[in-house]
Amino acid sequence: MQFLLEVVDILTNYVRKTFDRSTKVLDFHHPHQLLEGMEGFSLELCDQPESLEQILVDCRDTLKYGVRTGHPRFFNQLSSGLDIIGLAGEWLTSTANTNMFTYEIAPVFVLMEQLTLKKMREIIGWPNGEGDGIFSPGGAISNMYSVMVARYKHYPEVKIKGMAAAPRLVLFTSEHSHYSIKKASAVLGFGTENLILLKTDESLKDLVLSDSCACYLVKWFCCVSAVQGFVPVFVNATAGSTVYGAFDPINEIADICEKYNIWLHVDGAWGGGLLMSRKHRHKLNGVERANSVTWNPHKMMGVPLQCSAILVREKGLLQGCNSMCAGYLFQPDKQYDVTYDTGDKAIQCGRHVDIFKFWLMWKSKGTIGFEKHIDRCLELSEYLYHKIKNREGYEMPQHTNVCFWYIPPSLRLLPDGEEKRQRLHKVAPKIKAMMMECGTTMVGYQPQGDKVNFFRMVVSNPAVTRSDIDFLIDEIERLGQDL
Amino acid sequence: MQFLLEVVDILTNYVRKTFDRSTKVLDFHHPHQLLEGMEGFSLELCDQPESLEQILVDCRDTLKYGVRTGHPRFFNQLSSGLDIIGLAGEWLTSTANTNMFTYEIAPVFVLMEQLTLKKMREIIGWPNGEGDGIFSPGGAISNMYSVMVARYKHYPEVKIKGMAAAPRLVLFTSEHSHYSIKKASAVLGFGTENLILLKTDESLKDLVLSDSCACYLVKWFCCVSAVQGFVPVFVNATAGSTVYGAFDPINEIADICEKYNIWLHVDGAWGGGLLMSRKHRHKLNGVERANSVTWNPHKMMGVPLQCSAILVREKGLLQGCNSMCAGYLFQPDKQYDVTYDTGDKAIQCGRHVDIFKFWLMWKSKGTIGFEKHIDRCLELSEYLYHKIKNREGYEMPQHTNVCFWYIPPSLRLLPDGEEKRQRLHKVAPKIKAMMMECGTTMVGYQPQGDKVNFFRMVVSNPAVTRSDIDFLIDEIERLGQDL
Repeated sequence: MQFLLEVVDILTNYVRKTFDRSTKVLDFHHPHQLLEGMEGFSLELCDQPESLEQILVDCRDTLKYGVRTGHPRFFNQLSSGLDIIGLAGEWLTSTANTNMFTYEIAPVFVLMEQLTLKKMREIIGWPNGEGDGIFSPGGAISNMYSVMVARYKHYPEVKIKGMAAAPRLVLFTSEHSHYSIKKASAVLGFGTENLILLKTDESLKDLVLSDSCACYLVKWFCCVSAVQGFVPVFVNATAGSTVYGAFDPINEIADICEKYNIWLHVDGAWGGGLLMSRKHRHKLNGVERANSVTWNPHKMMGVPLQCSAILVREKGLLQGCNSMCAGYLFQPDKQYDVTYDTGDKAIQCGRHVDIFKFWLMWKSKGTIGFEKHIDRCLELSEYLYHKIKNREGYEMPQHTNVCFWYIPPSLRLLPDGEEKRQRLHKVAPKIKAMMMECGTTMVGYQPQGDKVNFFRMVVSNPAVTRSDIDFLIDEIERLGQDL
Repeated sequence: MQFLLEVVDILTNYVRKTFDRSTKVLDFHHPHQLLEGMEGFSLELCDQPESLEQILVDCRDTLKYGVRTGHPRFFNQLSSGLDIIGLAGEWLTSTANTNMFTYEIAPVFVLMEQLTLKKMREIIGWPNGEGDGIFSPGGAISNMYSVMVARYKHYPEVKIKGMAAAPRLVLFTSEHSHYSIKKASAVLGFGTENLILLKTDESLKDLVLSDSCACYLVKWFCCVSAVQGFVPVFVNATAGSTVYGAFDPINEIADICEKYNIWLHVDGAWGGGLLMSRKHRHKLNGVERANSVTWNPHKMMGVPLQCSAILVREKGLLQGCNSMCAGYLFQPDKQYDVTYDTGDKAIQCGRHVDIFKFWLMWKSKGTIGFEKHIDRCLELSEYLYHKIKNREGYEMPQHTNVCFWYIPPSLRLLPDGEEKRQRLHKVAPKIKAMMMECGTTMVGYQPQGDKVNFFRMVVSNPAVTRSDIDFLIDEIERLGQDL
């Protein structure tokens, strides 16, 4: 117990420093350096036990050589920040050390999950919050659930007879959608070539916080007619794409899905949080017409990892699709109402308790607290957008996530063309590598389609202020000006 | 920060009481009671924030109405116990709040995972610990990985073309295997009817800690010849079945798999821990011949939830099967060796850090510490077995997991037959319900095949002593004698 308190001491120090801007975001080392062992810190496992003193050193060093994802200058991922209530919730969860499969061993957590999912469905706009859902280990698995449930709804016999019982099924998503839709099509036995990737509107970069993948529907129609003999079964509309933060026009897509009786899934892993904001939820207009929705509170809402929900409008499908009625867990002759044993809906057996930290944060902030947080994150994005819009040396393809190129002075006078493209492609990786070695800040970059590497800037950490945005820009210019 | 320390105070009190046998295992309430709200504790979420004082009350009450899975008299699940080092590891993990997809944001954890998986493969017996693997969100997902990888090995074109590109594939497992194999066959598009459930040897109950599903091979041969035109692609051998704790004879099954070029998976979710014990690992003889192995340190090894590994003998298959090369995460032009970005092997995108608590426990106990723990758990099972073997009023079908009926005095003189069966079937649920209402202890029960409800007793908590085993038996007799 004394040991546990000493660990708490290490952890609270770490948390304090994380919010201190004079602390580095990371202390970068290459894999071979860490593998060779740093002074007093070896990753190797041994036959003999180590002393508690050494274990404390191991804890300290694990944090020292890690990345401070809660630091106000860590912008590298869609998930960032370190909410103290959420953290306390996660510590309690680990201490309770239980499993979501039955009411029997997780009575409080099972009910919290049920109530929270209902609340989320109300916010989506399904009447009385009716429907179904489950928390899953991340957005990729949530999206996979959506494809499974769509298949079960239209071809329930696949559960027993396999894919051979269905015609050749095709799925649709935009080329900017998350790669988990493609993973799902491989995993579930559809095959990735039966996932049609629709081109998006290239005028995207001109849109200002309204962003719609406009060509989507047109192209989609072309595809449907081109694939005669195939059966369209599933359309994914992205609400907040991973790179650009773009929103597909859900209502327009829903019209088509309703007409042709196709399952409509909305992947709001990133953008779902906007539903909490009266100001911004219009970007998801039509979401109530979806058959299923992925929504990750661990992204824009700042809940600690992992916390992802798949919500389904029709009740009973998740259960029908996944239940196997294991006799050793789901005994029908228990003394309580066994409809609360929700574990058989899952593709997992044991399931981590992801609900408590989220429930506790919701209690503590209230719905309005989440709204304020979301509004603030988007304000900061807008601040950055306006800051660099007319600043010399920047170009932007998009800006819900603020995506931009920094163009070093040496490239600014080059004519557009292959040479400039190739040199610009190397700028973001170089700046990023220097950032990591200095440990001052972290931001993501990637190429996309025919676009060379650009930065993607996202804000989901409540600790971020305008000064941190300013810092990022200054740092990019400091590191990049001589490239 | 003060708030966090107050939560720590609540948690350390909870931990202390969990190990105190005078504390109840649970304070049972029906779902409707908790939903209506207990005094001062409401599960409902509101628009407005709650005070920090109320949040502390919520934390306390969440624990109060939950189940103490670390209590020495909680025997209800394969996962139990509360290891303090593991708990500290989990608290640190939540504080670090990062994600396993890239070395970039989880450098230390990625390397720990790699080294630990290698160590596990060495213990399995693969030369130099070569091979591959990943930690997944539970044994069901680990088993699903094994089926996916088997399919990819034999029919890699399914990834792109779907199940239509393969002949009708059949999978084999025993009727006592975990239901996740069946789930995987549904999810992945094989269909549950293409999973052949093999009958096991009914003489099981006579075996004393050696347990083999003897009829398995014979029946399996019959099946293969019966299903002409189908292609056998996967066999699951269970190492520690969920209910009986029985072990399939891996070597005999491996002979067949090698002869017919079929993927052999060993589901050691429960029994894998025995590999750490020189005394007991013979039960998994032949495991080194498997193509893949599921092994859940969160079960017999007492690591906090969740901690499950899928280990694969051939390198590269996991990556080949699952990779989608997302450009925004797995940039090839990073400054470090990007082979350490292991996230694209997973079916998840974000992935919870499950490795640290396990690594820390291994450091702290050493390999020999895990061995001692395993040996002790099996000794206690043996103690229970001998205790009730000749005791009046008990019958046992099996005993690695000690499975038994308690027969109340009123039933002992009844002749065997339908009436006795029906009455005996109700005994375990009744005793269990009374246990839960008294809160004194918890143990699992289930029917199996044509057997009526029986208790399943498992020991994985290091805090359990013989006195707790004695207590369980006394409690069963106290509650059951008048039934």
